[in-house]
Amino acid sequence: MNLMKEGCFITIEGTEGVGKSTNVEFIRQYLSDKGIDLRLTREPGGTPLAEEIRELLLQPREEVVSDDAEILLVFAARAQHINQVIIPSLQRGQWVLSDRFIDATFAYQGAGRGISWNRIQQLEQYVLGDLRPDLTFLLDLPVDIGMERAEKRGALDRFEQEKHDFFEKVRQGYHHRLRAEPERFALIDAAQSLDNVQQQIAAVLAEKLDVM
Amino acid sequence: MNLMKEGCFITIEGTEGVGKSTNVEFIRQYLSDKGIDLRLTREPGGTPLAEEIRELLLQPREEVVSDDAEILLVFAARAQHINQVIIPSLQRGQWVLSDRFIDATFAYQGAGRGISWNRIQQLEQYVLGDLRPDLTFLLDLPVDIGMERAEKRGALDRFEQEKHDFFEKVRQGYHHRLRAEPERFALIDAAQSLDNVQQQIAAVLAEKLDVM
Repeated sequence: MNLMKEGCFITIEGTEGVGKSTNVEFIRQYLSDKGIDLRLTREPGGTPLAEEIRELLLQPREEVVSDDAEILLVFAARAQHINQVIIPSLQRGQWVLSDRFIDATFAYQGAGRGISWNRIQQLEQYVLGDLRPDLTFLLDLPVDIGMERAEKRGALDRFEQEKHDFFEKVRQGYHHRLRAEPERFALIDAAQSLDNVQQQIAAVLAEKLDVM
Repeated sequence: MNLMKEGCFITIEGTEGVGKSTNVEFIRQYLSDKGIDLRLTREPGGTPLAEEIRELLLQPREEVVSDDAEILLVFAARAQHINQVIIPSLQRGQWVLSDRFIDATFAYQGAGRGISWNRIQQLEQYVLGDLRPDLTFLLDLPVDIGMERAEKRGALDRFEQEKHDFFEKVRQGYHHRLRAEPERFALIDAAQSLDNVQQQIAAVLAEKLDVM
């Protein structure tokens, strides 16, 4: 992939109920106020086909979904998202903010499902080539608090139906990614007041704007 | 994948309109008469989830489907099919007959779309491990004749809508596979009378039954 990107690629990650949606909107507003042309998107999804793949992934089903099928669906959606949205937007000079991206795969399918990082890295290499986020916000919250919030939102999807233990592993998976690439991550304690969370996010974005 | 299989894994391949369905039924009947417990299946598909992925792949759509997304969807469906149907059936001692399998990917996504064989082999290794068909019938027919037959069947799917040139490449892709692994393939000239085609298929199956 010939990646000559102009824009900045930001991702936001975290387990269920950490407040991603609220803070995605905050980031959008903050960058808009600074005159940044932002493309807001999400994974799995971001294109009509990728959203259809998302539906296949999230809908609860009787059939046991094999780990291989799940992760290949995740990367199929991601390939379409990268080719149709992320790369073209960055090349046009837009900034891109994606609600979840590659780290979610290491956390959910890797730490959560138990797929080895080596196998995930094979698909990462296959699909992403050299593309990596420039900045990743990791919203971190004890699992119990997040699950309680997520349950209040109504019917649970196939992932949200997992048990506490699964999300504990997912959370640890995210921390593993953070330790592996600390310079890319901004760790945000999502148990703080929303004001504090957003002051912290704003400070990170201000620094990013300074160096761009 | 710990593959201790008892049954025989047969696949049938070919471009559009070569008569796969008719001959799948012939093989089913022939093996049934010999007392073989056969699991009939197809790709993409073969499980409820894999059939939903098939729908995503085949339905005509405005969105450009990236080569990576297409091949990852193909292998996602295949992973589910292998894990839920093919391996369990073979391990129970059933024979499995799949209408299309891995060779179709080398032919359609490889020769047809232009994805390199090296990239396909990475996913083949990822998903199939050591699993390979024991016998593959390749029904071969000049592209024009096959397309004419396929068009008579009604509305064309996303692949059938491709042009002559695409299917010419697909046919060559199948021949490339045949040359690479001649011991696995039975090449059947599908331009012959149906009687001749089926006599040839029966002879190959009789030989396979002898050595099992």
